[in-house]
Amino acid sequence: MPDMAAQLVDVSIDRTSPVPLYHQLSEQLCAAITDGRLQPGDPFENEVALSQRLSLSRPTVRRAIQEMVDKGLLVRRRGLGTTVANRKVHRRVALSSLFDDLSREGRAPRTVLLEHDTVTESDAAAALDLPPDTPLLAIVRLRLAADAPLAVMRNWLPPAYGDISRDELEATGLYAALRARGVHAVVAHQSIAARMPTPVERKHLRIRGTQPVLTMTRSAFDGAGAPVEFGDHSYRAEDYTIDLMVDER
Amino acid sequence: MPDMAAQLVDVSIDRTSPVPLYHQLSEQLCAAITDGRLQPGDPFENEVALSQRLSLSRPTVRRAIQEMVDKGLLVRRRGLGTTVANRKVHRRVALSSLFDDLSREGRAPRTVLLEHDTVTESDAAAALDLPPDTPLLAIVRLRLAADAPLAVMRNWLPPAYGDISRDELEATGLYAALRARGVHAVVAHQSIAARMPTPVERKHLRIRGTQPVLTMTRSAFDGAGAPVEFGDHSYRAEDYTIDLMVDER
Repeated sequence: MPDMAAQLVDVSIDRTSPVPLYHQLSEQLCAAITDGRLQPGDPFENEVALSQRLSLSRPTVRRAIQEMVDKGLLVRRRGLGTTVANRKVHRRVALSSLFDDLSREGRAPRTVLLEHDTVTESDAAAALDLPPDTPLLAIVRLRLAADAPLAVMRNWLPPAYGDISRDELEATGLYAALRARGVHAVVAHQSIAARMPTPVERKHLRIRGTQPVLTMTRSAFDGAGAPVEFGDHSYRAEDYTIDLMVDER
Repeated sequence: MPDMAAQLVDVSIDRTSPVPLYHQLSEQLCAAITDGRLQPGDPFENEVALSQRLSLSRPTVRRAIQEMVDKGLLVRRRGLGTTVANRKVHRRVALSSLFDDLSREGRAPRTVLLEHDTVTESDAAAALDLPPDTPLLAIVRLRLAADAPLAVMRNWLPPAYGDISRDELEATGLYAALRARGVHAVVAHQSIAARMPTPVERKHLRIRGTQPVLTMTRSAFDGAGAPVEFGDHSYRAEDYTIDLMVDER
């Protein structure tokens, strides 16, 4: 049982405080995750053990754990118990590259190229405002951060960028390969949604149990309005959040 | 069995065409959904029946159906068979109101007020840049579109808007209630993510089987930088997509 190895976090409960007991508990457990005493993937002490060790009622402990699950700090997996969640990737909405963002954060991005083909695909062509029979470079990449799978990324590129090679895509990000050709995407339509993973996504993203993917499609164009890429990406929802700033001043 | 009642869509397959058979099939089935021959919630003809009726192989039919599931046009539910998905709400990222957006589209928004309380909640206060013990108006609303549940919306408001009443919130949207007070949110930080629903969300959103929620948190401020609201919303992922435009020119 993974719970056997759970590290015990020092908790001090003040029964005279007006702060609810469950909240005192969850705050101290959250702090242990934030300051690194508990690490991503660590097994988490279970409800029964916590309630006995701290002489707290099971509903109190349950509520504290639920609060941490809701915040995304803990993950429950059937048959595997509760573990500390991976550190989430917070991505700003911008025409930046996940590869570059991960590199900057020191999170060792890696790409496994799954497909690299020339195809005709009318939906992708339409997303790029191109005729339906336009030959497109279709690539599928698995992106990992520090060896943990994070995203399955499908992209389609217009003929002008059909020379982007397998080697380039495994060595760097797509946007870096485009930059090397003097190409900069500056305008994009994006759609963000969520769904359950396909069997292929479950396999590549190593999704066990019941966890969704966050999806993003993007049609990106350069400053002259020429199509740059259409992307259809699936992210492990446990590990990925999209941040954005709305300013209507 | 729901499949019994599935409506048969006219499909003509051209075996001499270079277009793959599965794609010919999915395109014609998609068209039947887009033009309204198949309606949201309708049972969808199953793989066996389709392959027999059209003399197509089961893998061909399976691939066509999978393509439509991936596009969000069909929904598979354990024990219920495959049905045509609800028409998705496409929401632009903007400081607009879901209530107003649904009204404009003629989709009959309705609000069920689940909670309306004054609370202190340090996380919500922090999200609004307020001291942790600030009394906040905490509201929880279920939003429906044409009587189908779409979102569970939790919002916290600073003391200045603590007079917003139950009646107001059931009659209109939160942003309309704020507008009536001369308040306009113009800047916001948003985070978009996905997770499995909580039991309470499953109940209110009538989520059967395994379906995720798309989540959005938002801290919104007025033109002078004063806090307007902090929201933590969960949307039925099957029915909801967030669209946005990135323009870095």
